[in-house]
Amino acid sequence: MSIIVQKFGGSSVANKERLELVTEQIIKEVKKGNKVVVVVSAQGKTTDKLISEEAELSKNPDKREHDVLVSTGEQITISKLAMLLIEKNYKAVSLTGWQVPIITNSDFTNSRIRYIHNTTIEEYLAAGNIVIIAGFQGIDENGNITTFGRGGSDTTAVALAASLNAERCDIFTDVDGVYTTDPRIVENVKKIDSISYDEMLEMASMGAKVLHNRCVEIGKKYNVPIYVKSTFEKSNLGTLVNNKNLEDLVINGVAKDDNISKVTVVGLENKISRTYQLFKVLANNNINVDVISQSFKEELTKDIAFTVKKNDLKDTLNILDTNKENLGIKEILHNENLSKVTIIGVGVANKPGVAADMFEALSENNINIYMITTSEIKISVLVDSKDADLAVKAIHKKFFVE
Amino acid sequence: MSIIVQKFGGSSVANKERLELVTEQIIKEVKKGNKVVVVVSAQGKTTDKLISEEAELSKNPDKREHDVLVSTGEQITISKLAMLLIEKNYKAVSLTGWQVPIITNSDFTNSRIRYIHNTTIEEYLAAGNIVIIAGFQGIDENGNITTFGRGGSDTTAVALAASLNAERCDIFTDVDGVYTTDPRIVENVKKIDSISYDEMLEMASMGAKVLHNRCVEIGKKYNVPIYVKSTFEKSNLGTLVNNKNLEDLVINGVAKDDNISKVTVVGLENKISRTYQLFKVLANNNINVDVISQSFKEELTKDIAFTVKKNDLKDTLNILDTNKENLGIKEILHNENLSKVTIIGVGVANKPGVAADMFEALSENNINIYMITTSEIKISVLVDSKDADLAVKAIHKKFFVE
Repeated sequence: MSIIVQKFGGSSVANKERLELVTEQIIKEVKKGNKVVVVVSAQGKTTDKLISEEAELSKNPDKREHDVLVSTGEQITISKLAMLLIEKNYKAVSLTGWQVPIITNSDFTNSRIRYIHNTTIEEYLAAGNIVIIAGFQGIDENGNITTFGRGGSDTTAVALAASLNAERCDIFTDVDGVYTTDPRIVENVKKIDSISYDEMLEMASMGAKVLHNRCVEIGKKYNVPIYVKSTFEKSNLGTLVNNKNLEDLVINGVAKDDNISKVTVVGLENKISRTYQLFKVLANNNINVDVISQSFKEELTKDIAFTVKKNDLKDTLNILDTNKENLGIKEILHNENLSKVTIIGVGVANKPGVAADMFEALSENNINIYMITTSEIKISVLVDSKDADLAVKAIHKKFFVE
Repeated sequence: MSIIVQKFGGSSVANKERLELVTEQIIKEVKKGNKVVVVVSAQGKTTDKLISEEAELSKNPDKREHDVLVSTGEQITISKLAMLLIEKNYKAVSLTGWQVPIITNSDFTNSRIRYIHNTTIEEYLAAGNIVIIAGFQGIDENGNITTFGRGGSDTTAVALAASLNAERCDIFTDVDGVYTTDPRIVENVKKIDSISYDEMLEMASMGAKVLHNRCVEIGKKYNVPIYVKSTFEKSNLGTLVNNKNLEDLVINGVAKDDNISKVTVVGLENKISRTYQLFKVLANNNINVDVISQSFKEELTKDIAFTVKKNDLKDTLNILDTNKENLGIKEILHNENLSKVTIIGVGVANKPGVAADMFEALSENNINIYMITTSEIKISVLVDSKDADLAVKAIHKKFFVE
């Protein structure tokens, strides 16, 4: 008998009608003779509601107490789902994060899983139970409740699948899989049948909101096949995320990230130490820098351009201004409204035709490219945010329609 | 430094404004140099809301899962109250029932406390924290969440006060103490300054809803002084429940219980074994019998009258009917709508004047008495429910006004 882990998100468990659909997906696996472990999120907008109530009480809520508060959302869901399955004459039992227990570090609101004790789950499974586990939460070694940050239920599910050596982890969501790009931008998007962990990581970090990176990273590390499926469609085809053969060239998707600002530091002294000092100052202030490019105007100075998240722009400019003299910067320029459009697929960077096709699609639409960055499995370009949707459409058409 | 346990009920913690008043009561004790342990209920109608959602999912909700569900209410309150105190620059920490831990038996929805581990609470107190504990909940020896049934937060508070050897337990509520009778019936009620555990038990079982019997029983067993106070009044006089000297005669209150039916078994064979058999049959069917009286019509048979709760009447009549031949009963009579009016005070039964005054008050108002029962600290009479409010008024006037 195989163990299957199923995860259902907030909108999939929002009310009685949806919980009924969830039980159908669970019972389907039980009837195949599988042992089923289910991970659920808080119902609908429950977590948002708790956070807004919290904001009334404290400007800067204590993080330990925040975790005590928001972890109640998943606890409500597990008990309701277990009751509903018991009402339908299935054996079911709920477990909170601390009851499993899922042991984490003590980084409240954003804790990381250290290890999972399998014994309690395995005993309940052996006794014929469907085991319903609260996502997004654990317990630290001092007995405090911890949570994993938003989207942490995916992480719980894949970590449990890894720990229990499950056959696979099914992530049920509103959509029936991962798509070649955002269907809100492009009309004829295509569902991806199969994608590698690395490609999925790129898709997620580029704004494809289907899976969180932490869960994909765990899936990759422990080789857990992850299926992204729809709770509401019975066909259950979905997208499989696993270790694909890196030799095959498959363009898997086009993604967009609108949360980009570019900063250009002009006239930096042309010494290696200056580049190091610049990024050290930013790192010390917790500013994450993404794409970086250098250009050399003359022998003695260089310009360095890099991107930061939009909401880090103000801080970045302040920090650079404070350290202007220190770092020997002549001028600081910035461009606030940029987007990063990325094409993702194993081996793209090694096949020159792919980049050429991408730039051709942009050129045909008069879209200006500010920066380019590539990796083994992606090519990203920085464009004006006003052009971003057109860029996604043009690139998608070039690779998936033409 | 003394430990003070404070308990705040659902309406006292219903919203931000009320939580602010609660922090005032807590801070007042902290400023006196006391170590403060706070027990809270779920906010406002939270528990009712969860139970109505549960009713949608299951006609007969699984009891283990019910406890997982409803225990979230208190968990929400503890974190909010701790946050608010931290926001006001006080050190505070929340603990759920399992974090304390409060160990109970496994009787889900109605579990009993076995023991409380003081260590975690004592460590947090020693480090200067206000410790906020979820009422109404514990954990059994298998790691399951348990709850104590409605009103269980009072039990948590008094049990903690006993376990921690606290100086006293303050039960904060909507009203500023225990009254001589129900202010909805009688106008000029008087607040009781001091009452014994036994009298309080009688008051509670007679329908005075201020304190639950379980908490008073624990208070009595471990000699914990309990103060009933108002959350919303700063004077904080309230009513003290403790071990009073049983020699002093003080009439403390008049209570009423409308949930009474009387059953009369006519013509029972006049043998001791018959009485035993009758009540054995009822006990085996979980029927609680309250007042009992026997009357002897002739030498060979006797009549036995007793009271049961109204909602047990139908079952009682069915059981007696089934066993009619068995028990040798000639006839079964019943009176559905009776009320028990009780006068409570240490030593009342030993002072004949009290009973006489009580009967005089009823006689002056033409109120018929069906049965009379007395104990060391109370005299109860059974009257028609339509006369019950008039009876309470008349008796209250006789003892507290005249």
